[in-house]
Amino acid sequence: LRLRQITIVGLGLIGGSLAARCRKTFPKTRIVGVTRNRQALLKAKKERWIHEGTTDLKRGLQSAELVVLCTPVDTLKDLLKRIERRATGEIVVTDAGSVKGFLVRWADRQRWRHVRFVGAHPLAGSHERGINAAHPRLFDHSLTFVTPGRAVSPQALRQVKRFWSKISHRVVVTSPEKHDEVTAQISHFPHLLASLLVAGTAPGALPFAASGFLDTTRIAQGDPRLWTPIFNENRRELLRALDRFGFHLSRARRMIQKGSAKTLQQFLRQVQRRRAALE
Amino acid sequence: LRLRQITIVGLGLIGGSLAARCRKTFPKTRIVGVTRNRQALLKAKKERWIHEGTTDLKRGLQSAELVVLCTPVDTLKDLLKRIERRATGEIVVTDAGSVKGFLVRWADRQRWRHVRFVGAHPLAGSHERGINAAHPRLFDHSLTFVTPGRAVSPQALRQVKRFWSKISHRVVVTSPEKHDEVTAQISHFPHLLASLLVAGTAPGALPFAASGFLDTTRIAQGDPRLWTPIFNENRRELLRALDRFGFHLSRARRMIQKGSAKTLQQFLRQVQRRRAALE
Repeated sequence: LRLRQITIVGLGLIGGSLAARCRKTFPKTRIVGVTRNRQALLKAKKERWIHEGTTDLKRGLQSAELVVLCTPVDTLKDLLKRIERRATGEIVVTDAGSVKGFLVRWADRQRWRHVRFVGAHPLAGSHERGINAAHPRLFDHSLTFVTPGRAVSPQALRQVKRFWSKISHRVVVTSPEKHDEVTAQISHFPHLLASLLVAGTAPGALPFAASGFLDTTRIAQGDPRLWTPIFNENRRELLRALDRFGFHLSRARRMIQKGSAKTLQQFLRQVQRRRAALE
Repeated sequence: LRLRQITIVGLGLIGGSLAARCRKTFPKTRIVGVTRNRQALLKAKKERWIHEGTTDLKRGLQSAELVVLCTPVDTLKDLLKRIERRATGEIVVTDAGSVKGFLVRWADRQRWRHVRFVGAHPLAGSHERGINAAHPRLFDHSLTFVTPGRAVSPQALRQVKRFWSKISHRVVVTSPEKHDEVTAQISHFPHLLASLLVAGTAPGALPFAASGFLDTTRIAQGDPRLWTPIFNENRRELLRALDRFGFHLSRARRMIQKGSAKTLQQFLRQVQRRRAALE
């Protein structure tokens, strides 16, 4: 994968970490950062994560062979439209957004002359946000979903797959719909659950929270500016996960009320094994 | 607090860590460990966490001025009865169990000649279990609830309070009922929630779990042998927490279905602040 220039739009936790990683992985490639956040530009320049930083999208696109969008999911359609208008030649675009269906379905309906879009989602992140939490190792053990639409060109797909396979530990190509179903379960709904646990705990009990509660609710500190559009754009799968959980909650209620130690211990042992297998 | 001998019954994560800590905190006190687990006795001896280890409760009680019960909550009544039968003089007993109401109410009804029981609960632990996970620093930042019953002698209460204040960072004296209400919210119900999240996630989605999911469900690895009686003995408060959560879950369902980004973002921002204030 030889690229003269990669342009990263958005220099927060993900964009900043991606720039840092790209500098290491592609030493001969020019890395350009685009963001309206001047402080992030300064930090990225100072850390030598980007060769050039600009607040001007058009300027950032000049000579870019690959553009990676690392901004909140509700900004991606608009950015893609602007890239199409400002680009002068063919340009491959991928992203790092946490919801894929709504975007890929929309992209499939566009008649773009310049943009070749292939959606992606690296499963990496933190409850911390912004470029100050960024670091070049964020993607080290991560898996990246690449979620091509029906209209994608084979060359663009190949390039995007190769790019993410250099960045993250593993790449899985899947449909946007399957992606949204899986991430609703392992990421979006757990985020909602942790948030509800914080919201539902009496203020008088919170000061006694110890390591268990803190672990369980850590992700509830995620940036609301990122998570609100994630919840909205993946609403259908999120609600399905919620309803499935509601069913399990009712069942647990009956099990606890009945008070059969044997049934309860069987349940907890099954869960313990299932969870321990993930580490 | 000068004690000739402290006897710790049960040498798992809590008992082992407590023995290790007692050796440091009370260098002139003889520390005796009682457990049926011979491997734990060997480990505790080898680590010099105990002066003497025995599988025989009666022998362990000889010369003990303070006994600390560190076994599952469903074993505590029986142990207290056995201590009363085997003791030859007055003996102060405390415990480290996660549920207090059922035990303290029961203890209040006993007519003991020897046992002076004052319940306690150090908020320390781990999803790991057994003496191999034990270490002398487990209680360093912990808070311990001391939960006296109505029948407690002031001297015994004073001694138990002083003991736990030497072990943990902070001691809070509260009623067993208040204790059970608070721990249901910050510990028992979160444990159930994390377990249900593991149980409710499709097997096909689990392999994609990343750090957020792992944090949120870490406590679901807790020892079922400990957690089953905790859930059973604190059933009432656990169900109250579950019902309160069910209410929040339904409200969240409506909020997400409506799809008002503003309302959702307000909710997430409130939660984020609340949670961030706990670290």
